[in-house]
Amino acid sequence: MKKILVINAGSSSLKWQLFNIEGLTLINKGAMERMQTPEAVFTIIRNGEKISQQIANLTYQQGVELLFDQLKHLHLIQDVTDIAAVGHRVVAGGTTFKQPTQITTKNLDRLKALNKYAPLHNPVQVACIETLMQVLPESTPQIAVFDSQFYLDMPEQNALYAIPYDYSKNYQIRKYGEHGISHSYILHETARFLNKDYHDLKLVTLHLGGGSSITASKNGKPFDTSMGFTPLEGLPMGTRSGSVDPAVVPFLMNELHVDANEVINIFNEKSGLLGVSGLSADMRDIMANAPTNTRAKLAYEMFASAVVKYIGGYFTELGGLDAIVFTAGIGEHQTDLRTDIIKRLAVLGIKLDENSNQQGAGERVISADDSSVKVLMIPTNEELAIAQAVKQLTKLN
Amino acid sequence: MKKILVINAGSSSLKWQLFNIEGLTLINKGAMERMQTPEAVFTIIRNGEKISQQIANLTYQQGVELLFDQLKHLHLIQDVTDIAAVGHRVVAGGTTFKQPTQITTKNLDRLKALNKYAPLHNPVQVACIETLMQVLPESTPQIAVFDSQFYLDMPEQNALYAIPYDYSKNYQIRKYGEHGISHSYILHETARFLNKDYHDLKLVTLHLGGGSSITASKNGKPFDTSMGFTPLEGLPMGTRSGSVDPAVVPFLMNELHVDANEVINIFNEKSGLLGVSGLSADMRDIMANAPTNTRAKLAYEMFASAVVKYIGGYFTELGGLDAIVFTAGIGEHQTDLRTDIIKRLAVLGIKLDENSNQQGAGERVISADDSSVKVLMIPTNEELAIAQAVKQLTKLN
Repeated sequence: MKKILVINAGSSSLKWQLFNIEGLTLINKGAMERMQTPEAVFTIIRNGEKISQQIANLTYQQGVELLFDQLKHLHLIQDVTDIAAVGHRVVAGGTTFKQPTQITTKNLDRLKALNKYAPLHNPVQVACIETLMQVLPESTPQIAVFDSQFYLDMPEQNALYAIPYDYSKNYQIRKYGEHGISHSYILHETARFLNKDYHDLKLVTLHLGGGSSITASKNGKPFDTSMGFTPLEGLPMGTRSGSVDPAVVPFLMNELHVDANEVINIFNEKSGLLGVSGLSADMRDIMANAPTNTRAKLAYEMFASAVVKYIGGYFTELGGLDAIVFTAGIGEHQTDLRTDIIKRLAVLGIKLDENSNQQGAGERVISADDSSVKVLMIPTNEELAIAQAVKQLTKLN
Repeated sequence: MKKILVINAGSSSLKWQLFNIEGLTLINKGAMERMQTPEAVFTIIRNGEKISQQIANLTYQQGVELLFDQLKHLHLIQDVTDIAAVGHRVVAGGTTFKQPTQITTKNLDRLKALNKYAPLHNPVQVACIETLMQVLPESTPQIAVFDSQFYLDMPEQNALYAIPYDYSKNYQIRKYGEHGISHSYILHETARFLNKDYHDLKLVTLHLGGGSSITASKNGKPFDTSMGFTPLEGLPMGTRSGSVDPAVVPFLMNELHVDANEVINIFNEKSGLLGVSGLSADMRDIMANAPTNTRAKLAYEMFASAVVKYIGGYFTELGGLDAIVFTAGIGEHQTDLRTDIIKRLAVLGIKLDENSNQQGAGERVISADDSSVKVLMIPTNEELAIAQAVKQLTKLN
């Protein structure tokens, strides 16, 4: 039976899932982490068990090649021709790619021209596409699904910066948002869960993970979002600072004797929870240490306070909400963080159901019956959303 | 009778007021605008009438010297010794100057070392202080009152950026806020107006003018604020962009072939209402043109939407508010903008009294009796606040 492979490459990891085309049932999945470092790890599930092996300095190209070896070794595919299509998550489609698009040698250069819009993400995603163009027959469609496409219709007052209008237009400087695939998936999943038309929902979706973003949607489209021109802006994240006064860039260039790109690298890779706490980029470590470590506590407070302010701002901007939805690594699993955030929303009439929040399992309502806004936890699944887009575009059955 | 002169120098203007020490009654006031440009204008009130003269390329030093000529010419002072003390607004006191401070030749260098923290403001403010040190006897106190001092106690989760903690500490990178003199003055004026102790108020103060900032205060201290390391961050302003993804800095450097300082200059001087509309940095022009001009409408929407989101965020963060206070040029005079903003806060239970808002005069309540939060308009007076600080520090009577 023919299969769809989905590659979700991030700035330091690569997640993949293999689906049967029919029903998009999951066959297997895995992840590669800490790519291109001495601690790189390749993980695959074999006989229901997670098997990890450390492969120092594993590149994205090597990772993809190794993945195919393993798929064959485990008899998940007999031959590369068993893969009917591949879906790739790509962060920045700019204003060039407005929908899922088959990448061919013809439009590959147009994709590469967008690398500068997401310098930590797009280049490795392009590398995966190029590798698979070599590994697979030329006829196998390589479909890029863009995080940015969800945000292209966002109202201009929220999409543009208040910089000279000609620069916004000539250089396509705007908020591209991020995690668009996830926020879009959650928008539809929430409508399904609440048994409503997704066009009728006013939603705030919280994708909180290694990277975090908050999106306000109404009329079935994003209205506002926390991430910006690149995935740097908005909330503090694992290693990313979130919003910083741009005037800090030349100031730090001068103090540290580095160039502007290096300052942005510091904001992307050495900041956020890691930079503030000095301990870890992982929210689990931050929360475990917050009671006794003032800098872990500070990192936690920066994150929680920023989340609360975005929710309050979007609640007000949209004139109320139908639901607030937690998703992604932190949003799905850090129940104490959800408790804390929801309690800080009391003035909006939002009330927690602590029992459901702490004890429940799977997608569910975690707010009290008399909460002014339903609060939900719904797991995201970017890979499934990409597979759905691939199936739709390729008309595979 | 001895007098206090207050100099409020901004990035392109200089406002001044002359007070009697007793009761701090106003003797005269004036302004110099578009400083250091061919269109520079010097204005003073003579016999109740505004007299303006254009003086091409007027510098801050020349402006201060001319001011003294005029004060003598109008017999407002007989001699420079009539000035008992001078108060200067200074934007950035860093962590060096935590309270109003007499500037002497001894600590002038410590003040100059802070120029880099507000490169558009501090250097011209220092120039005014140096000029007055020459014009006036050495014994005349020159008191610097800092915008930043109000914010030094702000909780760290709101004061610091999520950049590496050592950089925050070693280079004093933090939110210094701005308009601290004004927000502090309004906090106290609001308490007086509401007949409450200012320590008991949860407030959002909106200083909306050529530069705009929003501050959330509780327990008599600022808890959060929209401006950042420099006066660039936060709301879109007359010519300033407000918040922008810092990654836009290297991107624009590359596209425009300019250095990082030039990008920040563009964000400070060619952006905001002016840059978006292409028409004007003045909110009056923007609002007059918004009905027929899409870019004026966009500039207005960016501003209004950002104001609404900050209010909603701070309302939520503080768990409700006692009052929201409009002040400064736009905040005091643009009644239609106030109407629009307040209507967008309806979901928070905030209700407008349109009659009071449109028809009333002077400081007043502009929300309806059944509004969940009182909304006030209270005129600011930074110069009076500075004179009060000078009088207190110098113990002049």
